[in-house]
Amino acid sequence: MNNPSFDANFYAVIPAGGVGSRLWPLSREAAPKFLQDFTGSGRSLLQETFARLAAFLPAERILVVTGLAHSDAVARQLPQLPEANLLVEPSPRDSTAAIALATSVVLQRDADAIVGSFAADHVIIDQAGFESAVAVAAQQAALGHIVAIGINPTSATSAYGYIQTGEQHSDAVSQVSAFVEKPSQTLAADYLASGDYLWNAGMFITRADRLLSAIELTEPELVRTVEKLAAALSAGQHPAADAELWSSIKKVAIDYSVAEPAAARGEMRVVRASFDWTDVGDFASLSNLGDQTSDQVRTLGDVRAVSIDSTGLVVGSGGKVVVISGLDDVVVVDTPDALLITTREKAQTTKDAVAKLRELGHYDVL
Amino acid sequence: MNNPSFDANFYAVIPAGGVGSRLWPLSREAAPKFLQDFTGSGRSLLQETFARLAAFLPAERILVVTGLAHSDAVARQLPQLPEANLLVEPSPRDSTAAIALATSVVLQRDADAIVGSFAADHVIIDQAGFESAVAVAAQQAALGHIVAIGINPTSATSAYGYIQTGEQHSDAVSQVSAFVEKPSQTLAADYLASGDYLWNAGMFITRADRLLSAIELTEPELVRTVEKLAAALSAGQHPAADAELWSSIKKVAIDYSVAEPAAARGEMRVVRASFDWTDVGDFASLSNLGDQTSDQVRTLGDVRAVSIDSTGLVVGSGGKVVVISGLDDVVVVDTPDALLITTREKAQTTKDAVAKLRELGHYDVL
Repeated sequence: MNNPSFDANFYAVIPAGGVGSRLWPLSREAAPKFLQDFTGSGRSLLQETFARLAAFLPAERILVVTGLAHSDAVARQLPQLPEANLLVEPSPRDSTAAIALATSVVLQRDADAIVGSFAADHVIIDQAGFESAVAVAAQQAALGHIVAIGINPTSATSAYGYIQTGEQHSDAVSQVSAFVEKPSQTLAADYLASGDYLWNAGMFITRADRLLSAIELTEPELVRTVEKLAAALSAGQHPAADAELWSSIKKVAIDYSVAEPAAARGEMRVVRASFDWTDVGDFASLSNLGDQTSDQVRTLGDVRAVSIDSTGLVVGSGGKVVVISGLDDVVVVDTPDALLITTREKAQTTKDAVAKLRELGHYDVL
Repeated sequence: MNNPSFDANFYAVIPAGGVGSRLWPLSREAAPKFLQDFTGSGRSLLQETFARLAAFLPAERILVVTGLAHSDAVARQLPQLPEANLLVEPSPRDSTAAIALATSVVLQRDADAIVGSFAADHVIIDQAGFESAVAVAAQQAALGHIVAIGINPTSATSAYGYIQTGEQHSDAVSQVSAFVEKPSQTLAADYLASGDYLWNAGMFITRADRLLSAIELTEPELVRTVEKLAAALSAGQHPAADAELWSSIKKVAIDYSVAEPAAARGEMRVVRASFDWTDVGDFASLSNLGDQTSDQVRTLGDVRAVSIDSTGLVVGSGGKVVVISGLDDVVVVDTPDALLITTREKAQTTKDAVAKLRELGHYDVL
């Protein structure tokens, strides 16, 4: 089970937060995407992520950070996860707080720990490619570097962030010159052509102490508060007891608190990987996972899609028949109580639609 | 109850056939549109049609012609309809056969009968306007004319057929110059501007003997077969007994067997009417019945539609939330087991989609 290339002090952290409102109505507050089977594998994205890590790590060295609302569901979905490794945030405070909390708990157990953080909602099929990239990153982390994993881009997508590579240290390892947020389609095409850019897979691997120090440089207050909650949780206190303190924490993504400043300081390295990787962030990316039907419409789920002069994506369930006629690049997501119809181009703005539903008081489908 | 301007020999015939596949998935083989409440009135289109006629005619003089598959449902929906006035066709043979069958049965009861035929799936709100137009038509029919009812067009729609009027006989009555099938949008605009064209409401009023003679001119075989079934039905025979004979009847619309040839012979008159009238033939016309929401999307049924940068029609049920984003002139029709998404322009081709569903073997949703 365990991969000998990983030291006994490698820990994996899975932040399982975020409602994924860009995937509404599939993803809901009460049933976020990571708890759902989006790929038809029979397992949720979280279960897939856990299994991917458990293939080379003992469950004792995998931690999941989630919110109060989902901790029971996570525990049910991951019976192998030790109770002490399910860390519950009193409220969602974005990725820096979640990863810092887990890192802090790990540090209490192992002063030499190396932590890698892995999103709960990414899809990866190539297990061997994933393991070998993480192993290289862990070796780099042991040397004191903060390490990202970059995926060789296979298309000029504007749906992902990119990593600009700098000086090459070995076949697979380069310096990070900069992180670039989701570019325009034109810019993405330039990136792809240059060969100097990788997709940012949002995985960071580093020594636990090194990570907390890096966060402290930009968010010292955050680290102090997180350490208090980590100590309380480890002492068996209910997360809700520190709800007020926790809610004072600044919401900031790990990209802004650690990755970008560290890259600017020349402290980030990237492992160039070529495993397949999909960030199931919106319907445009989700459509890459679907089955291509003969007539240019992709489908996901147990749906009978029939298209006439149409292209796009149809997501459905229960064997429902969905007929699309005369629409190009349409995205149709049908659930029993809510239906979304938009275009691939507009799919990124589903968040706005969800905000509008909240304004209108349609809380039952949020 | 009874309008004194109607003679005791005026009979109304309601042909209740036709699956209405252009309204799939609302209209199904097992639940055709005329059996459904399309307007939110609490009554089916057939019940509305019957009530509209029963307001000025005794139930004894209203006849409904329907297929074997729907006769039980029709009887349940119309408990006031005398059993002898529910005529069941062994198989659907289009409108000439249905109307000829009822006319033949009426003639057995009353040699001087005047019959008016009224589609089971049209929507009319202005009861007084309807009654007075039918009364004028009945008077014209008593004089020996074959009479159509034409609606003053209120828009240049290409969804309806038109009647070109000729010599004017009185304020409301003109000669019919010609029937024109659904015209292009441009032609429809010319028709509207000219003032010489009316919408063909598909209602024909004439003496019963005159109607059968007119059909005999174009379809003599059809009349002979229909008269046999009418005699058998009146003698109490089950309609299925004559299934084979009946299935030999030519399928032809009354427009082709009677209206157009009679117009060409100069034998048709039209009553110009101004009551509201909607032929719920497809989703483009159905959208005229919907509620206009503030953001340019019309809705029909118990549906919570939310639109962003979109226009069109949403039909739903069960309080389902439907979000449309970035689509113009879209038609969305959601039912528990089937969903149609098309454009207003393509709505006329829903028939083709239904044909494709049959090809693919999705019989459960036909």
